[in-house]
Amino acid sequence: MPHGRAATPCDTDLVNDVDALGPELQATWRREIPLAAAIGVEVSACTSTELVVRAPLTPNRNVHGTAFAGSLFSVCVLTGWGMAWLALRQRGLDGTIVVADSRIQYRKAVTGDLLCRCRVDAKVLDRQLAPLETSGRARIPIVCTIDANDKRAVTFEGEYVVQRKTARNEAE
Amino acid sequence: MPHGRAATPCDTDLVNDVDALGPELQATWRREIPLAAAIGVEVSACTSTELVVRAPLTPNRNVHGTAFAGSLFSVCVLTGWGMAWLALRQRGLDGTIVVADSRIQYRKAVTGDLLCRCRVDAKVLDRQLAPLETSGRARIPIVCTIDANDKRAVTFEGEYVVQRKTARNEAE
Repeated sequence: MPHGRAATPCDTDLVNDVDALGPELQATWRREIPLAAAIGVEVSACTSTELVVRAPLTPNRNVHGTAFAGSLFSVCVLTGWGMAWLALRQRGLDGTIVVADSRIQYRKAVTGDLLCRCRVDAKVLDRQLAPLETSGRARIPIVCTIDANDKRAVTFEGEYVVQRKTARNEAE
Repeated sequence: MPHGRAATPCDTDLVNDVDALGPELQATWRREIPLAAAIGVEVSACTSTELVVRAPLTPNRNVHGTAFAGSLFSVCVLTGWGMAWLALRQRGLDGTIVVADSRIQYRKAVTGDLLCRCRVDAKVLDRQLAPLETSGRARIPIVCTIDANDKRAVTFEGEYVVQRKTARNEAE
């Protein structure tokens, strides 16, 4: 499974070649998803169990001058997808990842840049991903959060479905 | 409460000056919310109880070439907000509208343009908006859907909070 070998701006506590995955993830988003480019998502930290994604406020403001609900959701759903993607890559697994259901709670307006955090437990992820090998499909619940002024502003809970790639969906 | 008087491309079954509100809503989104402009949202039909919003697939595609989950959510959350905005305007009410909680279910990939529909019951809305006059605050649950190939692809349920404008939040 070839992937990027570039030097990385990612944070410390890196495991294996996770350091190369942050830039690859960001480049994939910006190349393949026009809205991710419009939002201006940047991978600002990545370890084997944590992903932090940043987006500037300016292109993401709403009628009130704070962060638009759709931008907040998009940054969260990308961060969750990115965490699942990292989990697969670090385990040498291959699969398509889609979000099936999600819930988002907005508790405070975000008045500055959007900083989304996702943290997972590696052992829990191992268990959740095990069915991918046996049945070709796994479901991963992922939580992402965005704080504003040191208080929880947004909580996102998404359920991602990972499906083993087949000849058919490889071609998709 | 001044608003646009331009001729409208909106659909039939128009009540009072709802016909002028569709273009005003679309212009507000595109002027005030950069992501709405990036998504390319268009009000394609509006009546007193229904709002239909369209967005082209191309700027909203994901890594699979289908509609990006964040775009689908954004079109839904805007449509729900637009329905609440229309409800206020038609009743001569003024208030800030924000989404508090929402849930979205993705059941099928959307492979063409995104067409989001929101329909409300005018009498139910009257009841839900009544507290705005008495307590200055109302909560409106709104459902939006997106179909693909005549099947339900996306169901969005959002709870919007409407707050009567005060001198303070007028200035915000």
